[in-house]
Amino acid sequence: LKVKIDGETRELYTLWREGETVKMIDQRKLPHRFEIASFGDHRATAAAIKDMVCRGAGAVGCAAGYAMAQAALEAKNASLQGFMAYMEDAAETIRGTRPTAVNLFHAVERCLEACREGSVRERVENVLREADMIAEDDLEASKSMGEIGARLIADGCRVLTHCNAGALAFIDYGTALSPVRVAHGQGKSVFVWVDETRPRCQGSRLTAWEMEQEGIPYAIIVDNAAGYYMRRGEVDMVVVGADRVAANGDVANKIGTYEKAVVAKANGVPFYVAAPEMTFDLNTPTGDDIEIEERSPEEVTTIWGIAEDGNHARVLIPGKGSSARNPAFDVTPAEYITGFITEKGLIKPPYNEKIVETFRK
Amino acid sequence: LKVKIDGETRELYTLWREGETVKMIDQRKLPHRFEIASFGDHRATAAAIKDMVCRGAGAVGCAAGYAMAQAALEAKNASLQGFMAYMEDAAETIRGTRPTAVNLFHAVERCLEACREGSVRERVENVLREADMIAEDDLEASKSMGEIGARLIADGCRVLTHCNAGALAFIDYGTALSPVRVAHGQGKSVFVWVDETRPRCQGSRLTAWEMEQEGIPYAIIVDNAAGYYMRRGEVDMVVVGADRVAANGDVANKIGTYEKAVVAKANGVPFYVAAPEMTFDLNTPTGDDIEIEERSPEEVTTIWGIAEDGNHARVLIPGKGSSARNPAFDVTPAEYITGFITEKGLIKPPYNEKIVETFRK
Repeated sequence: LKVKIDGETRELYTLWREGETVKMIDQRKLPHRFEIASFGDHRATAAAIKDMVCRGAGAVGCAAGYAMAQAALEAKNASLQGFMAYMEDAAETIRGTRPTAVNLFHAVERCLEACREGSVRERVENVLREADMIAEDDLEASKSMGEIGARLIADGCRVLTHCNAGALAFIDYGTALSPVRVAHGQGKSVFVWVDETRPRCQGSRLTAWEMEQEGIPYAIIVDNAAGYYMRRGEVDMVVVGADRVAANGDVANKIGTYEKAVVAKANGVPFYVAAPEMTFDLNTPTGDDIEIEERSPEEVTTIWGIAEDGNHARVLIPGKGSSARNPAFDVTPAEYITGFITEKGLIKPPYNEKIVETFRK
Repeated sequence: LKVKIDGETRELYTLWREGETVKMIDQRKLPHRFEIASFGDHRATAAAIKDMVCRGAGAVGCAAGYAMAQAALEAKNASLQGFMAYMEDAAETIRGTRPTAVNLFHAVERCLEACREGSVRERVENVLREADMIAEDDLEASKSMGEIGARLIADGCRVLTHCNAGALAFIDYGTALSPVRVAHGQGKSVFVWVDETRPRCQGSRLTAWEMEQEGIPYAIIVDNAAGYYMRRGEVDMVVVGADRVAANGDVANKIGTYEKAVVAKANGVPFYVAAPEMTFDLNTPTGDDIEIEERSPEEVTTIWGIAEDGNHARVLIPGKGSSARNPAFDVTPAEYITGFITEKGLIKPPYNEKIVETFRK
């Protein structure tokens, strides 16, 4: 992704591994400060996933893979039994960070599979290679989704997106924003309505930041205003990412996605979900089988930003001690989804068999 | 409304007149500080309306009436000609405070009508009486809506509301929250889902504060989460207020109301609008004839609250210079509305003739 640093534009990935260290763009500090954070062992990387230094399905999956690679390096001098126990333990730690994103579980599984055979030394090599492959697969899938999705974007298109399924949510390009990037790169005029995406405001903080870096025109709106612009005919399509897609095409994604999908359908606005193979979970029959994470109510009652003195500040919005609830995701039934933009092509309804056919191993 | 002050619960109105002084709960400081502000003449009261010391259709109308009463007292020793000139001038000042609030214009008009006949002394008396009547009408209408709306609320009901159409927006009781108050007073168990209502958060700041004072169980949610709870079957009804109702039953209300209505319909959740006669505008044929105010983008990009040091602070959420749009209201088509809770009874569809019949002068 493009990052403007001191007037110079650099190309960076969202996260990467340098030997035993994992480095990440610290997304908790964006858009106000651009910092690269370093994590020296798998526990630190797991904590970074939990603390949302990186977030987004793909990025979390890649970080999980790199954390497994770190674990393998940490245990490289252990006995075979010790190594395997250490890897199983690390897998447990990493699995315990974020319950909803399936990429994380896939990544951990792929790395565990990679260390089932051979000497400890061979197993370490295999895990490192697998972790790199996870990141490479992520990158290639994002690029392909961009090419395929860009065909849906006509010149002058006004796209609405929710949350951040951009480069920052993956290694680069992203899912929902990848078609926008590619269309823009093809010289098409594209405008992006950016839902701010309460409570954590990944839209106004991250998606708007990405659009600003890429020079793509956009406007942040409160989540409440998406329907207003749809009803006025000022939204030509909605594209969102996904945290998990069930076998029947139901989608778990950031809280509010469901509302946008229902209102889009009521207004005849096409609603696309961009998601790579990793996000499709054929073992989950329907959306109702997906566990929804409920996060701290403080994400609703407090918000951080830059105060007038230029410093970070967290402020309390309602009265002290107010009661709040904070489901982090919701489920959008397949009937609201016009199509899935995947690296294997566009999938149109009816979904059930097509999803299973496309992604059966 | 109930207000807990130093552990003691007092019954107060949102605003009232004491001789030549108008007193108001200072809503700019809620929910973090509770203060009563005093305004010694009609110009000070007009400035208070403009500065949003009070807000909400009914409260603004009552404050305008009291400001006219203050003007009458200020001019009570003038000649008849001098008195009338002073009153016309005061009317002009008060009309210039909030150009969009229809209740304010109605109130000023009623007070001007009340001083057309008799001696100066009689005219002063008439204006004072009319200003009191405006407040009394507001109070009676709110109470009636509470009684009528409470019949729709079964024991154990979970009500979702958007923005603040509570006691603070009127003299007492409110519109959308009045049925909740009355049902709670009848001993029914009621739970309120409070949409925070971005961008100004009148839900999390004011509605939650009212529920806290009344001891009614509630939870603040981000606007994005309303659909989630509806789909899970955890919302039994939605009740909102209105800024203006067109003759055909289309409703202009706080941005986001439209989305909630569409999602409520998709889930079979009844969607009620509570509004007094004053809010129905028979001269506006449909919702599309209502002009929608677009407010400053800074309401989207910045937010205020209490910082960790206990002081008021305003923070910037997205990157500096980010682009944003901020429509303040939206229009909900009549087809999404299950019924109108009014002081004249419950109005059910089809609306057009029934609204005109009920409110024709």
